[in-house]
Amino acid sequence: MSPPAARRALVVGTGLIGGSIGRALRRSGWHVTGRDADESRVRRALELGAIDASGDGLDAALVVVATPAGQAAAVACHVLAEEGRNPDVVVTDVSGVKVPVVEAVRDPRFVGGHPMAGSEQSGIDGADPDLFVGATWVLTPTVETDAAAYTLVSTVVTELGAEVVALSPTDHDRLVAVVSHVPHLVAATLMNAAAEGAEADGALLRLAAGGFRDMTRVAAGQPTIWPDICAENADAIVAGLDRLLVDLGELRDKVARADRSGLLEVLGRASTARRELPSRATRPDRLAELRAPIPDREGMLAEFTGLAGDLGVNIYDLTIAHSAEGPRGVLTLLVASEDAARLRKAIEERGHSCTVIELS
Amino acid sequence: MSPPAARRALVVGTGLIGGSIGRALRRSGWHVTGRDADESRVRRALELGAIDASGDGLDAALVVVATPAGQAAAVACHVLAEEGRNPDVVVTDVSGVKVPVVEAVRDPRFVGGHPMAGSEQSGIDGADPDLFVGATWVLTPTVETDAAAYTLVSTVVTELGAEVVALSPTDHDRLVAVVSHVPHLVAATLMNAAAEGAEADGALLRLAAGGFRDMTRVAAGQPTIWPDICAENADAIVAGLDRLLVDLGELRDKVARADRSGLLEVLGRASTARRELPSRATRPDRLAELRAPIPDREGMLAEFTGLAGDLGVNIYDLTIAHSAEGPRGVLTLLVASEDAARLRKAIEERGHSCTVIELS
Repeated sequence: MSPPAARRALVVGTGLIGGSIGRALRRSGWHVTGRDADESRVRRALELGAIDASGDGLDAALVVVATPAGQAAAVACHVLAEEGRNPDVVVTDVSGVKVPVVEAVRDPRFVGGHPMAGSEQSGIDGADPDLFVGATWVLTPTVETDAAAYTLVSTVVTELGAEVVALSPTDHDRLVAVVSHVPHLVAATLMNAAAEGAEADGALLRLAAGGFRDMTRVAAGQPTIWPDICAENADAIVAGLDRLLVDLGELRDKVARADRSGLLEVLGRASTARRELPSRATRPDRLAELRAPIPDREGMLAEFTGLAGDLGVNIYDLTIAHSAEGPRGVLTLLVASEDAARLRKAIEERGHSCTVIELS
Repeated sequence: MSPPAARRALVVGTGLIGGSIGRALRRSGWHVTGRDADESRVRRALELGAIDASGDGLDAALVVVATPAGQAAAVACHVLAEEGRNPDVVVTDVSGVKVPVVEAVRDPRFVGGHPMAGSEQSGIDGADPDLFVGATWVLTPTVETDAAAYTLVSTVVTELGAEVVALSPTDHDRLVAVVSHVPHLVAATLMNAAAEGAEADGALLRLAAGGFRDMTRVAAGQPTIWPDICAENADAIVAGLDRLLVDLGELRDKVARADRSGLLEVLGRASTARRELPSRATRPDRLAELRAPIPDREGMLAEFTGLAGDLGVNIYDLTIAHSAEGPRGVLTLLVASEDAARLRKAIEERGHSCTVIELS
């Protein structure tokens, strides 16, 4: 007896991320079909138990596109239009830049995604079902996204142990430039400068202690993904690098003129901010449910997730119950108790009524 | 019965590093006296077992100056001139910039040191006798350094589990600017940019995944040490930042003009270099002993350690046996077998004879 189609998934691209998602889905009871442009990788995924079968998974309820970023949009479009495909299929992807893929696909059944979990491993052999536990997984619904599609992807991401953060594709791309893309380029630059210095003086790398190792760790990653990322997120990356060049230039001048109080201010601010940096996302102890009757129309989902995102409020679960009697529904949002009041206020300011139920 | 003076040490400054050295020395059988400008820290060091006693330790064979860097030279000079002090005392310090200290002290009994082990902890309560195990510990002998003083400090550092790297003070300061000071300033700058971005968009720090956390970890450290470091090593830090500004500017232009092959080249080079970065120093399996009869005169020690440093050869042990019959001695160096031949060649090129004994 095969599992119901509702728990059948297709993973396209069985590399490190696709393989990890496959293993995690299978552990949660999903039946996972895999396919990959490289047949040998599908065979290896089967051997490693990352997928149940190879094939097209036409009856799958969920398709995860985990190909290289440059192919994600084309693969998602192909899957959505595929002959014989379940018409209710929901498709998501894992690429690190969201605007190009979301704009290219533009389908209510597509929800852009970006699991913010990396690994120094690469390839299917490094696949790890725990890769996403405690990680942030961004979803980028738009005004066109179907609420049921968003709910399915969000529920699955939560099943995999990750915490969903909903952002617009544009906000996502701007923010990851600051916390991921620019830092990666800086790590590579620091590593290259040290490697060149080491050619002149063999002792240099023996002095590279824990701090240097930490700072350059990401630079060890697969370099081939970066030309795509830099091309797709060029504007935000260039803006981030320009900002960094200004900041570093000012700091250089503070060092050159021995501006002790200026240096202490910069380093003190950074020390405080780093100590306050939240550790891996964990679900808060106390949760509250917000319920708002809303017009059941296109764009409402993006409006509410965007509102929460702007307030820095994380949504742990989201459902929309459609009314049988007309074009209205009830939106239910699960958030941390401490965030409930201000999100309610913002929802009310937009003209909706909203009730808060504290969960024990 | 108190231990012989040869195994008595004084630690001046009982903070994180001084306390960790105290605990490690005691574990190796040393009697450790501690003193600190702040009496309460000495009491706490006693309570925690980081020292055996508080006091001036006038009979100590070894004094470790572990005060803040700005005071290290003055404290070392004071100790060396102290009334009633053992005249054969050997003094070392732990400050992160070596030229100012070494130039200010200029005493054959002083050996500059820099343990390259950090901790996000600070203060005596974070003291850890294992802090230095596997770490690199730079010593900076000069032409004035007494060989017996160097041998004592080098032996003690090895007892604490660290690996000695001998460098000139100038080389040390130039190299740590590249692998430690500039990266630290960059980490602080990245953290500040992210913290400011987070004020505008609360979701930003939720996207700060492992890579960002790794890159900014050092920025959490005590900010108060940095004005001293930046002042004392200003030239090398400014040079390193200028180099970084040029490199980052070039990379920014590659992103802006979508130079895919140029980006792949930069990131590929960094990835290879990072994967090849040696992990924490460990003693090689096969060692060889080099013996060279040398003129027993000032500066020979620095000549040989500098020679090894220039070749990237690590010296695991070094002794000088003085001849009873005249101004000659025998220098013995312990190095990795694979490094023995080229160090021997370099020693011979300087006009000394040299024999290599492979140790099993």
